[in-house]
Amino acid sequence: MDKRLEKQLAFALEIDKEKEIYRQTHLSGHGRNENDSEHAWHMAIMTYLLREYANEDFDVLKAMLMCLIHDVVEIDAGDTYAYDAEGKKTQKAREDAAKERIYSLLPEDQKQELIAIFDEFEEGDSPEARFVRAMDNLQPLILNNSNNGDDWKPHGVSANQVYKRQIITKAGSEVLWEVTDAILKENIAKGNLSWVSDPEEND
Amino acid sequence: MDKRLEKQLAFALEIDKEKEIYRQTHLSGHGRNENDSEHAWHMAIMTYLLREYANEDFDVLKAMLMCLIHDVVEIDAGDTYAYDAEGKKTQKAREDAAKERIYSLLPEDQKQELIAIFDEFEEGDSPEARFVRAMDNLQPLILNNSNNGDDWKPHGVSANQVYKRQIITKAGSEVLWEVTDAILKENIAKGNLSWVSDPEEND
Repeated sequence: MDKRLEKQLAFALEIDKEKEIYRQTHLSGHGRNENDSEHAWHMAIMTYLLREYANEDFDVLKAMLMCLIHDVVEIDAGDTYAYDAEGKKTQKAREDAAKERIYSLLPEDQKQELIAIFDEFEEGDSPEARFVRAMDNLQPLILNNSNNGDDWKPHGVSANQVYKRQIITKAGSEVLWEVTDAILKENIAKGNLSWVSDPEEND
Repeated sequence: MDKRLEKQLAFALEIDKEKEIYRQTHLSGHGRNENDSEHAWHMAIMTYLLREYANEDFDVLKAMLMCLIHDVVEIDAGDTYAYDAEGKKTQKAREDAAKERIYSLLPEDQKQELIAIFDEFEEGDSPEARFVRAMDNLQPLILNNSNNGDDWKPHGVSANQVYKRQIITKAGSEVLWEVTDAILKENIAKGNLSWVSDPEEND
């Protein structure tokens, strides 16, 4: 087999492992933990269907690909929970090593292309990255909201923490930020989320 | 909330259920059964990375969307195994009812758009559908091949049946058909697959 195709198929087989990287989010209907590939699939469809709400025009194909591959590094680096302050400290180093190993399975041009898209997502500084980050927030929020906010409870996550993370959605979509804000207010009203007054806990 | 956005979010929540529709394919490393959303995610990435091998030019965004949504109907209709002759008889009726119910959650324009893409996949008569069907064959094949053909064994699937299904790949990509043929020959040589001589068993 052609060397180029052999590398592409080796990468295709390797990313199968992303299906065993589980997140803190649970499936609707109080289901099991969601895995990274499911999360990525869901985000890509939402990107397509909700693209009319983006603040800026963006390249939909590139954004969907960004959704699909944004967590590939977690095959090696594992999932770092959004509110895990300790894990966050080493996350970049773990993900950089993973990025190099996994994308090196591809032919050089595709390696560079996918790394550039992943880096763009991480930097969050393009119309595509801003919208994909909004999806990265909204997708687990709609699941968690359907489960009465149960994903926040075992971790004692505060409204302060959730707002700090979710506010990023506003840069991708003002409309979806309004929806997010309404969902969060409803969860606060129900007692699923609470504000904390100690600024040490606000991070 | 705006009625249109409300419908879009209701659809987004509904398709979460696709993560619990399990296929006959197992994850690499002799893992658990794969689910439809994982399969769709994997196919969409493969479509992007392997698009250079398509026999014809095609719209990559449309094809990736086709991958992502092609199994949504299985939320209601369940997965019909590729070699389940009985299940195949009722598959279309079950999937038509599911298609109507699930896509009706969306605003009318998006309902019609996604149904058209799903129907195009089913008919298999466009450049996008031909390539996506090749991915629908190749993606489980690389997993099954990595597991020594174990997915065929419990069902007593014959080489005849596998070739009859896999030959469809040729219409999407001659190059990927050659790879498929090589993989199948290797599995026949290893005894993972066998030809049967009774034509009654060839269907």
